Amino acid sequence: MAASVRVYAPATVANVAAGFDILGFAVHNPGDEVVARSSASPGVRITAVTGGDGSIPLDPARNTAGVSVRCLFESTGYQGGIELELHKRMPSGSGLGSSAASAVAAVVAANELTGLNLKREELLPFAMEAERVACGAAHADNAAPALLGGFVLIRSYKPLDIVRIPAPAEIFCAVVHPELEIRTEDARKILRSRITMRDAVVQWGNTAGLIAGLLKSDYALIGRSLTDVIIEPARAILIPCFHQVKEAALAAGALGCSISGSGPSIFALTHGRQVAERAGGAMSAVYRSVGIDCETYISDVNSTGAVALE
Amino acid sequence: MAASVRVYAPATVANVAAGFDILGFAVHNPGDEVVARSSASPGVRITAVTGGDGSIPLDPARNTAGVSVRCLFESTGYQGGIELELHKRMPSGSGLGSSAASAVAAVVAANELTGLNLKREELLPFAMEAERVACGAAHADNAAPALLGGFVLIRSYKPLDIVRIPAPAEIFCAVVHPELEIRTEDARKILRSRITMRDAVVQWGNTAGLIAGLLKSDYALIGRSLTDVIIEPARAILIPCFHQVKEAALAAGALGCSISGSGPSIFALTHGRQVAERAGGAMSAVYRSVGIDCETYISDVNSTGAVALE
Repeated sequence: MAASVRVYAPATVANVAAGFDILGFAVHNPGDEVVARSSASPGVRITAVTGGDGSIPLDPARNTAGVSVRCLFESTGYQGGIELELHKRMPSGSGLGSSAASAVAAVVAANELTGLNLKREELLPFAMEAERVACGAAHADNAAPALLGGFVLIRSYKPLDIVRIPAPAEIFCAVVHPELEIRTEDARKILRSRITMRDAVVQWGNTAGLIAGLLKSDYALIGRSLTDVIIEPARAILIPCFHQVKEAALAAGALGCSISGSGPSIFALTHGRQVAERAGGAMSAVYRSVGIDCETYISDVNSTGAVALE
Repeated sequence: MAASVRVYAPATVANVAAGFDILGFAVHNPGDEVVARSSASPGVRITAVTGGDGSIPLDPARNTAGVSVRCLFESTGYQGGIELELHKRMPSGSGLGSSAASAVAAVVAANELTGLNLKREELLPFAMEAERVACGAAHADNAAPALLGGFVLIRSYKPLDIVRIPAPAEIFCAVVHPELEIRTEDARKILRSRITMRDAVVQWGNTAGLIAGLLKSDYALIGRSLTDVIIEPARAILIPCFHQVKEAALAAGALGCSISGSGPSIFALTHGRQVAERAGGAMSAVYRSVGIDCETYISDVNSTGAVALE
């Protein structure tokens, strides 16, 4: 057994316009790191959390890194002990899958350290259980791409059915995170529980178009399909300047632009890095112009997901 | 100019489970034939209709073959005359795109006869206009696959955005048409105008899975995705023995089974011809056992759409 394992898990963009609750993809940064060390005392301990806002508990029952590893140990009957250090390198409540990144980094590190050697896909339920603790529902649309990389379709939860959708080679992403927090719970509450059939048909036409565009590497089709007539109009109300930021991204040549996860981060997909840089610059300029601080991340789609470092 | 042109346009399966209003595919048979001849007197005349149930009018304003050609002539400013013979080789009101097949065969024949030589895609709006006359809405989910072949995604109507989805090589289809008529209008009325967000998410997960399965030639994924939690449960009420027929198809090894168009025809998709034949046999046996006559069609996906004969 290695003395310690250090794993990086990336931020993820879930929902992806018409892919509400079923689609997500991984970026390269930001992301979280977890260092796992074997321990003589059984069970899971979190020895340190660095880089967060101070609100992330050391209690492994209330920390997604701890929950995912506990679930791994329970499920496999593993009796040993582990110590985890969590290095938060990304903001919580940002819509970038922060809780999933911690859970995924931890469970991948623990799986490797302990020699349990479950397959990547087999680790997903443990990260999803951690998501249940973090946001009340065992979503996979951040955890799956953080774990596996690329675009991931969650076709179904009952039973869980995960479909990997390779990203076209020249797809890039610009993400802007304005320094405001939106609680996933609040972003859920703003959604209606019933929608019109007419809107639903428009939405699943775009869902289908997006999947077809990704698999056919048809950038124009991806752009035309990055349209969300149901969730974005509701949630945009919670995000200051959303429409101006989106307009700025499109004016800079982005294929499309929408809310990352439940916000407030906003992502744009582009054909090529140059456009992503231009779009990211234009998007962040909107926030700067009104005095809202923001972080901007430019990345291609991360095709590997979580990786062991060193 | 040729003296006459004879064109065959195939039946089509629209909706395709989770693809309600956005997806259709073409089969090889049944289908309609149109013979077009140039005429000294300007405009469109229908000189004969054979093979229908006697209800199809010769009036070109009330016959989809006539409407589509009239629209072609109006749109292009064509001043000549044409005579059409329509040979119905498929049942009306069957859920197999009968009105679209006639419209497509006619407009393809007229386009060739007159030397207007518009591209296939350019003919779609004329066939859609004929669909408006036939069923009150300018749907493309039968007309597009009848014209172009294969699976066709109608991502959007405003603007019209047609995406061709090549069919996996070994996908076959069994269609059973019980001899009952359901009016498209009635099948529309039974649908609710509002649906739950929860159902909508399940549905677009399956829509996405179906498109991914088709483009990845992943037969098992196609099967898992051929699920419709919204339209099929409502419309199945109008189709006697629907659930028994579906069970019979699945028991025979079909990947999935649902309502073709607005019914009453029922289609099953299979991996390979043998399973399609077995499924078709099992499906029709259900109807025979209760004394309902039916036709059964076994076919691979028709990748060409309408074709000129001879």
